[in-house]
Formats: sequence, structure tokens, C-alpha cells
Amino acid sequence: MRIGVLGTGMVGRTLSAKFAELGHETRIGTRDVAAAMASTEVTRDGTGTLAQWQENNPEVPVATFADAAAHGEVVLNATSGVASLDALRMAGEGNLEGKVLIDVSNPLDFSRGFPPTLSVCNTDSVAERIQEAFPAARVVKTLNTVGAPVMVAPSAVAGGEHTMFVAGNDQEAKSLVTDTFLRGGFGWKHVMDLGDIKSARGMEMYLPLWLSLMQVGGSPLFNIAVLT
Amino acid sequence: MRIGVLGTGMVGRTLSAKFAELGHETRIGTRDVAAAMASTEVTRDGTGTLAQWQENNPEVPVATFADAAAHGEVVLNATSGVASLDALRMAGEGNLEGKVLIDVSNPLDFSRGFPPTLSVCNTDSVAERIQEAFPAARVVKTLNTVGAPVMVAPSAVAGGEHTMFVAGNDQEAKSLVTDTFLRGGFGWKHVMDLGDIKSARGMEMYLPLWLSLMQVGGSPLFNIAVLT
Repeated sequence: MRIGVLGTGMVGRTLSAKFAELGHETRIGTRDVAAAMASTEVTRDGTGTLAQWQENNPEVPVATFADAAAHGEVVLNATSGVASLDALRMAGEGNLEGKVLIDVSNPLDFSRGFPPTLSVCNTDSVAERIQEAFPAARVVKTLNTVGAPVMVAPSAVAGGEHTMFVAGNDQEAKSLVTDTFLRGGFGWKHVMDLGDIKSARGMEMYLPLWLSLMQVGGSPLFNIAVLT
Repeated sequence: MRIGVLGTGMVGRTLSAKFAELGHETRIGTRDVAAAMASTEVTRDGTGTLAQWQENNPEVPVATFADAAAHGEVVLNATSGVASLDALRMAGEGNLEGKVLIDVSNPLDFSRGFPPTLSVCNTDSVAERIQEAFPAARVVKTLNTVGAPVMVAPSAVAGGEHTMFVAGNDQEAKSLVTDTFLRGGFGWKHVMDLGDIKSARGMEMYLPLWLSLMQVGGSPLFNIAVLT
């Protein structure tokens, strides 16, 4: 399948490398390719600058948001939640039309330091805003409740016996994301459908607890299991 | 130990009955005893009106907020988070001074229907507001992340292999609550200290996800386990 990943941070890199490994033709999008490739900024996952990452992942071309979105049969938003609407506008409404749009973003606002606050919550969510702004896209919220390494390797935590959530208005889109990527590609054993896109609120508002748990445990290699 | 429980809803009833069963001298407080005892309102747990509950739980006298708080060596806030500051003011600052104040409330605002929103979140929490308003109380946030039946019987879910959180500024208070009540009295096997009272934010903001999970599963008999 052709996949366009938007965002070249840790999450975008991790997911696009995994998609490529799974045989999907993947492009990773950024605002300004020349600027991003010249950037000396490094991610915390040890993959270095974007230029270094590109050298080690030549099968995933760095492209513009618009090129990546146009390329993708499925588009994945891995930009920061505070910038996602802008990034998606640059990707272009026409390039999202009718497509499954996986939203893994979190609206973390670090402008007042750590812990960050959420730039949208309680009465709204990033996923809802995206769905509202791009009504022809089939938005599926998922993966935002775990760190990047856990997203693509759930078996690294507790033998995979923990829970991933999906939310969205389009049942077929949720099924495709769940079957092809979450269960099929990444190996998630337990995927819970929380309902329509409004349920993304709870998934995004879980982030402050996630950040506490990461601080206490000192590692992003954890997740929650919903047990009865 | 003498315990004053504030709030005669499902949570207050469940916890005070359990405290009494454990041998603690417990009183349950309400705004207006005569009005509450005359009320025909019933809780969803099948314990009927407060008068009926009192008849079946004579070892837990219904008292005013102030009487219950004055009685308690430990005070537990089981009022709705949207009304907790008012209830605690009626309980009286002097009756809370130096005492461990367990806050199990959630700021759920149902005024716009279901799902409720939170009346405070993101940059603040009920627990922080309580600690700020009553600086001489030793506030410990806990138990708000599970339904009332799970609070006092964690073994009813997944053999007790799931997680309870505590947050608060007073380490001794957190230890007392954890050892005497959570582990000792109720049987919680896994209690995580998330840090100071600010960590209550994440615990309260988890509620929208909890509500989704309850809707999907159709029962409050569940919890999350934090796994690595």
C-alpha cells in the first residue's frame, strides 16, 4: 500500500521506517524539505538529524507534506497536535479526500515548560478538529497513547498483553487500520474500538497520566492493559 | 481509626460501609441531614434511599459534613468534584487541619449531558484546588480512577492484577493511605505513587477515557494495569 506520513519527528520516523519494512511504499512529509534536510536538530531516539536518518532509510523519501499526502492511499498525521491543522492544510484538502487519515498526534503544549498542557481538550480534541476541517477524510485516531517504540513493537511490553484504542466515525476505515496495520503489521493483540471520533477526547486527555507514568518509570516502554 | 466520609452517594456509601466492616469508627457526612434522610433519591448500586441505606448500615451514622469531619482522624472527600470545595468549607477548615484528607472526587459536569466534561482540568485539578484552599490538610488523591465497587474490592477485577495511583505532597500521608487502606484494608496489590498533588491532574483527566471504557464494556467492573 502507498503511505504518506506527515511529520519527521521520532513518531514519523519510527512509523514510516516500520511501514517500509512491512513492504509499504512510504514517503515522509515535512513543511520545507531543504530546511528540514539541512537541520542539525536530532531526535531523542538516536537516529540523528533528518539527513542522517534519510541516509539510513533511503527507502522512505523525504518529501513535502503535499507530496507525501498525494502519494499516500493512506495518510498518517505524526505532526505535533498543536501544528496538525496547519500541516494538513499544507498537505492539501484534495490530497486527503476519501482517504483513511490516521491521526496519532497529541496536542502537547510545552510553551509553559514541563509538564506540558494540552492545547485542546475536554470539549474538543485534535482528531475532532481534523475531522471537522477535512470532512471528506476518514479520520482514525490511534497509537497516540503509547510512545513511538511501543507503537510498532507492542510485544516489547509485557509480551504484548496490553491495549490499543481506535476511534473514528468510519467503521471501514477503523477496520482497515486495525486489521492491516495494528494487528497485522505491528502485532497488536488487543485493540479496542472506543466509538466515534469524539472518543478521541479521552485518548488525548490520557496524555497527562501517560507523562506521569513515564516520569515515574523513567522509560516510554510501558502501556496500560484494560482488564475486567 | 476514626473516619469521616463526606458525601452520601454511591462512592461515599461504598467506602464508609467498607471502613466500618474493617473496624473503623466511621461517620458519613451530608449537607443537610434531615433533607438527605427524607430524600427519595436512590443510587444506582441498589442500596436505595439514604434512609434505607442507613437502616441497613446502622454502624455508620449519617451526620453533617462538619460532624463527620470533626469525628474523623482521616477525612475522605466523596462528594462530586464540582461541589467539593463548598462541601469542605461546610466541613470546616479547623476540622481538616493536620488531617489526612483522601480525595476520591472527579469534577464531572453533566450539565451538558453525556459524556460529561470536566469542570476543571489541564492547568489545574480538584485535588490541587483543595490542597490550595486547605493548606493545613494533607491531601492524598486516590481511587478516583475506578468505579466504587472496584475501589474496595480490587480482587473482583483480573485477580487484583491492576493498578491504583496515589498523588500528594505529604509522603507520610500517602504511605498511611497506601498501607492502611489501599493495600491493607482493600487489598490493592499494585499502588503507584505518581508524585506531588499536581499529578492528580492526570488522574482526573483520565476520566473521559474511563467513561468510554465503561460504555464500551457496559460495566464499571474494570481497571487498567500499567505494564512494562
